[in-house]
Amino acid sequence: MDHRETVDTYWRAIDARDWPTLRGLLAPDVRYEVPQSSELVRGPEAVVRFNAEYPGAWRLSPLRIVADAQGAASWIDFRLDGESMTGLTFFTFDKAGRVATAIDFWPEPYERPADRAHLSELQ
Amino acid sequence: MDHRETVDTYWRAIDARDWPTLRGLLAPDVRYEVPQSSELVRGPEAVVRFNAEYPGAWRLSPLRIVADAQGAASWIDFRLDGESMTGLTFFTFDKAGRVATAIDFWPEPYERPADRAHLSELQ
Repeated sequence: MDHRETVDTYWRAIDARDWPTLRGLLAPDVRYEVPQSSELVRGPEAVVRFNAEYPGAWRLSPLRIVADAQGAASWIDFRLDGESMTGLTFFTFDKAGRVATAIDFWPEPYERPADRAHLSELQ
Repeated sequence: MDHRETVDTYWRAIDARDWPTLRGLLAPDVRYEVPQSSELVRGPEAVVRFNAEYPGAWRLSPLRIVADAQGAASWIDFRLDGESMTGLTFFTFDKAGRVATAIDFWPEPYERPADRAHLSELQ
């Protein structure tokens, strides 16, 4: 499985609550990190549990995956209690191709700053 | 120049205020987007101007670049008026390898939600 397939399978396993498949994609020393909130989850059991017990009614779908020999990045749509959120993740892998680190970011909407309003249009 | 080199050159040109180099990397119908604020900038001249006139004292450095035949993603450290910010960008390219779309995200710190506090440690 190449890195792109691994990331695609990772997200589809989480969305399907298929914990044995997710577990099989993770390196023994996997780290899941959320830099915005300083959250760190270490080891496959804890990473599976983080996803299995993540609160709320949620579904996700990958929108873009970029992958090369060193790593990967993905952009997912995450629907939490009916609200659409953007999830961006940077991955690294061990030599067996398992996920070694997954670093998640959750950007939130904000208002265009006035001091750069002359430089863009609004979609 | 492959997609990884294009993205690396794009960021180094912006940091160096080297507008002719940046201009040369952009497709004629390039689109720069910031989904969080709904900002859209169309065309090479407007994209160069957005960067050239971006307010504040800023420097940037790329931390990670992932690239494949279809696209690329980058993670940069952006220092604005002494504050460190995270910039995440997904790129697509035209057939000549020029940047066709650059979609930027700027995740901000937040407090770990109480309802998932039992699932992680704090770094």
